[in-house]
Amino acid sequence: MSATTPAQHSDQPGRIMSGEMAEQPAVLRRILDEGAPRIREIAERIAARNPRFVLLTARGTSDNAALYAKYLIEVLLGKPCGLTSMSTTTAYGAEQDLTDVLVITVSQSGGSPDLVASTEAAREAGAITLAVTNNPDSPLAAVSEFHIDVLAGPENALPATKTYTAELLALYLFVEGLRGGDGAAAKILPELAQQILDRKDEVKQLAGRYRFAERMVITSRGYGYPTAKEAALKLMETSYIPALSYSGADLLHGPLAMVDNISPVIAIVTDGKGGQALQPVLERLRGRGADLVVIGPQSEVDRASAGFALPTDGVAEEVQPILEILPLQLLAYEVTIARGQDPDAPRALAKVTETR
Amino acid sequence: MSATTPAQHSDQPGRIMSGEMAEQPAVLRRILDEGAPRIREIAERIAARNPRFVLLTARGTSDNAALYAKYLIEVLLGKPCGLTSMSTTTAYGAEQDLTDVLVITVSQSGGSPDLVASTEAAREAGAITLAVTNNPDSPLAAVSEFHIDVLAGPENALPATKTYTAELLALYLFVEGLRGGDGAAAKILPELAQQILDRKDEVKQLAGRYRFAERMVITSRGYGYPTAKEAALKLMETSYIPALSYSGADLLHGPLAMVDNISPVIAIVTDGKGGQALQPVLERLRGRGADLVVIGPQSEVDRASAGFALPTDGVAEEVQPILEILPLQLLAYEVTIARGQDPDAPRALAKVTETR
Repeated sequence: MSATTPAQHSDQPGRIMSGEMAEQPAVLRRILDEGAPRIREIAERIAARNPRFVLLTARGTSDNAALYAKYLIEVLLGKPCGLTSMSTTTAYGAEQDLTDVLVITVSQSGGSPDLVASTEAAREAGAITLAVTNNPDSPLAAVSEFHIDVLAGPENALPATKTYTAELLALYLFVEGLRGGDGAAAKILPELAQQILDRKDEVKQLAGRYRFAERMVITSRGYGYPTAKEAALKLMETSYIPALSYSGADLLHGPLAMVDNISPVIAIVTDGKGGQALQPVLERLRGRGADLVVIGPQSEVDRASAGFALPTDGVAEEVQPILEILPLQLLAYEVTIARGQDPDAPRALAKVTETR
Repeated sequence: MSATTPAQHSDQPGRIMSGEMAEQPAVLRRILDEGAPRIREIAERIAARNPRFVLLTARGTSDNAALYAKYLIEVLLGKPCGLTSMSTTTAYGAEQDLTDVLVITVSQSGGSPDLVASTEAAREAGAITLAVTNNPDSPLAAVSEFHIDVLAGPENALPATKTYTAELLALYLFVEGLRGGDGAAAKILPELAQQILDRKDEVKQLAGRYRFAERMVITSRGYGYPTAKEAALKLMETSYIPALSYSGADLLHGPLAMVDNISPVIAIVTDGKGGQALQPVLERLRGRGADLVVIGPQSEVDRASAGFALPTDGVAEEVQPILEILPLQLLAYEVTIARGQDPDAPRALAKVTETR
């Protein structure tokens, strides 16, 4: 069952979302300064229990943050990892043996009843349970053995922005803690995030090409793939443009037929192995004459129709997603404004989605 | 790297796809009659090794079959299960400890280099490996410890149809074998599949409403969710209509904003717990005035704008996906014909997609 709460309208369309996007450098800094010690402590306690498998449970924007964590866990920890199909527990009552399994539930509000039920069931089934939320007083935090607060402060715009990047950073620091790393690669992020957000005029210019777009394809590979999914979700829920996201490899397995020389494609090209693995896909897209906008290194932007260059110097590939999404959040915002809609209050959406 | 092979054109557009869809009852019967004993034997040998965690690896249509298996494994076996993010191995060289893990790789051709590399790496990492393919002589079958042949015969149309339903049935019988079940629920499928395929005029009529559609949303929950994803893929790769698929719960977390009273929505409503869990979503869609087409029980079709009624009497929910996809394959075919395109030969696609 889902309930729609009245959206918080403002006189200036998009004022709330705009303000929350702008808070992101400060939120990242707060997590590094105030949140990191507690995250490390939780990671050490969980590492001592030596989980063998990891399951991630989430919906919507938080599901994209969970997918980012899946890459971290597989690549950095070498542990097999899966995303929970929640209905197997909540609709079908599946009784699983979750001994040695770490179940991480990610939720901005910590209030969705199906996430709470699924996490409770996981704990009863023997799992180590960790909730990652923006609300330490939430029901989800209460039913989980461990809780990480992402410290983003109240989020009022319906499209989640600062809680997404906060979840990414908290999950990165947690996985670093599990493997005894120091998370030093994250130190540079608040400053770089500020530099990116300061370039919103560049994004405004990019947004012009999508004002009349009837659909979009967004692709990436590896660490950038969660960014592609989150960018598609953000564009859909604010501008209502049907935005389809695919891993580059999956795009070649069917959906490529949809891309022609008037289909806009956005590619998120990480500076690293994910970006390298995406090269054959970029070649195919250029070969089909697609309008290709790249979010990535300047050298990749130069070979595309247009783009937004990201800083790469000294930025480890595994933390690049925390920066990559920023111009895409701005893009969703600017496209929505250009289409005469209010990004703060998409029709039909509630902030806490009460799926059961 | 991906190579495009020339598609096999025919004088009659869609003749190849149409012929292969029509073979499905015979293929299902062949699996039940000739394939089942071997599948059961493999399942018993793997069950004796007692895997604790299951990972599924696939791309495109086969990835949707893998997702179906994920539901079966979680609900019927109670084992935690994940879908592989292939690039963690093939691009990032992640070294995972896969002791006690069963890795199932699903692929029509068994020829995609990344699937072969990922399966080889899994076997070296200690996993029990099982390939499910339509080609026992494939490289994938060769590198896997176990192999199940889905016995669909050569598939020549670019959009996969009979290999999809064959994969579903083979995976169902395998999971049944793992838990010592007899798979009796599948016996009725060939006959019912034939009855559904005989109703293609009904589908042709439904197809009319999508001839000029600019986008579609397809939703379901539980066992029907893989059907929603496969239907979207089929529609995109044949008709090029951007078709977005969401679990009903995720639809409420953002993409619902996209659905208005001119957005066509197709809902796959299983007769069982998945269909029950979808009810609040159907209510919301009806409330928004969406054009709602239901594939499901007659009673659900009656409450929608239109639909295709599926037989439910004596059909267990867990095998319904093997029937549900049939009208949707026909729909993709008919919409494509209505739009003046050839379903046999979508632009830009190769039958064996050589992603690495």
